[in-house]
Amino acid sequence: MAGNTGKPGQSVSGRVFALLRAFDPAHPRLSLTELAQRAELPLATAHRLVGQLEQQRALERDEDGYYRIGLLLWELGSLARVSSRFREVALPFLQDLYEATRENIHLAVRDGFDALYVEKLSGHRSVPTISRLGTRLPLHSTGVGKALLAHAEPEVIQSYVERNLVRHTRYTITERGRLLRELRTTVTRGYALTNEEMTLGSCSVAVPIPAEAGEPAGAIGVVVHSARADLPKLVPDLRAAADGIARRLREDTDGPAPGAVHDFPRRPGR
Amino acid sequence: MAGNTGKPGQSVSGRVFALLRAFDPAHPRLSLTELAQRAELPLATAHRLVGQLEQQRALERDEDGYYRIGLLLWELGSLARVSSRFREVALPFLQDLYEATRENIHLAVRDGFDALYVEKLSGHRSVPTISRLGTRLPLHSTGVGKALLAHAEPEVIQSYVERNLVRHTRYTITERGRLLRELRTTVTRGYALTNEEMTLGSCSVAVPIPAEAGEPAGAIGVVVHSARADLPKLVPDLRAAADGIARRLREDTDGPAPGAVHDFPRRPGR
Repeated sequence: MAGNTGKPGQSVSGRVFALLRAFDPAHPRLSLTELAQRAELPLATAHRLVGQLEQQRALERDEDGYYRIGLLLWELGSLARVSSRFREVALPFLQDLYEATRENIHLAVRDGFDALYVEKLSGHRSVPTISRLGTRLPLHSTGVGKALLAHAEPEVIQSYVERNLVRHTRYTITERGRLLRELRTTVTRGYALTNEEMTLGSCSVAVPIPAEAGEPAGAIGVVVHSARADLPKLVPDLRAAADGIARRLREDTDGPAPGAVHDFPRRPGR
Repeated sequence: MAGNTGKPGQSVSGRVFALLRAFDPAHPRLSLTELAQRAELPLATAHRLVGQLEQQRALERDEDGYYRIGLLLWELGSLARVSSRFREVALPFLQDLYEATRENIHLAVRDGFDALYVEKLSGHRSVPTISRLGTRLPLHSTGVGKALLAHAEPEVIQSYVERNLVRHTRYTITERGRLLRELRTTVTRGYALTNEEMTLGSCSVAVPIPAEAGEPAGAIGVVVHSARADLPKLVPDLRAAADGIARRLREDTDGPAPGAVHDFPRRPGR
């Protein structure tokens, strides 16, 4: 959990971030004891720092005494490029896609070995998915992940396939050679497909968002019920949206490069 | 800028948050010098802490050497209730509204004396607005703001109208008695209207999202070009969306109360 600056005896700011990093999509609420354990801090230290964080509204406390991420961090986070620039530029195009399909629309960037979900649109009748804003999912078992990985630098791809590839369903591609072939196919045909590789009953199609140079700026994908899947039919709409986003990102003058952060390998402590 | 714990000589976590709070929607990128000034910290202190924040990915540095809020804070912020619960529950209803209107759709909560914008949907052809995710706008000059203020506790309303009410256009209601009458009308008819009170050429209609008890959980509004305004026509769709969101929030078992944080008065330092 804690990064290399998050151990006891390290800097105060390191301990603060060890506490904050104790929260993740699977752990959005924590008791003080859980917080201290996950941050590897003595309870007294955690208690003192958590009080300061609560005062700053970086954390807030439930009526039940559990802690959650507070409003200040949401406000600050909304200023990050991935939100204020990338997501904001993409959103109208994602809405068009949603209207055309009524399915789950995903926007993701590659961050290390993860597909990080930056936006998700879904309607009342879309198939439920495990992705949420801020979720990290594997690159080999998701549509947006495959689209991102297929267009990553060769050394990223090589390091990725050399890892132990987690099997999520019996259809997940975990064999190195097969994944490499799948990624080459993805590049050749210009879009990625998954068929129940992350969740049984769901399949997806995704395309990269072209960047001026180097890796894609991100990827967009549609996740549908396997039963009602005619995925290649969705590709022209997906491509139009990806091209529109890429064009708007080029026109945007607010500093260089979009939200994607290509640190490699994964950042320590996550 | 800096809260009461952000002054030099105060706790390290206070200084960390003084640096982070230097960023806001009007200042999404800052040089090190600007950061130190806005946080009221000596340059050397700022430099050392900013290095730690960059290492944690709480801040990131532009190719131009400017600092921005980093990916970690976006990820953490997405776990805040206002995003993971309130916004996520509301989004499908906001999309319905967008499709029905093709205009700007806003979701906001009251935080102190501000309307805090939690979501904004807008299409390629919607009228441009100054609101963005995480923006704070006044309660007396915005549609969602009036809807929130009109249904706030009497002492909140009283304290609000006793302040100096900023005039944004020649149509902004800045006279106390007139604003109080406007708020009573808003409660009586069940929706709020603005007519070029925030931005010339734009008008809006908004309704509160009912809560089980006390203040509304938030408000949703539509902002349109004044020229094409038939705002009361939009009220039935707005109300259906607000009721749908309220129902889903009640069903949601993930802890109590939605994202709205009703600290009062405004939190120090912002």
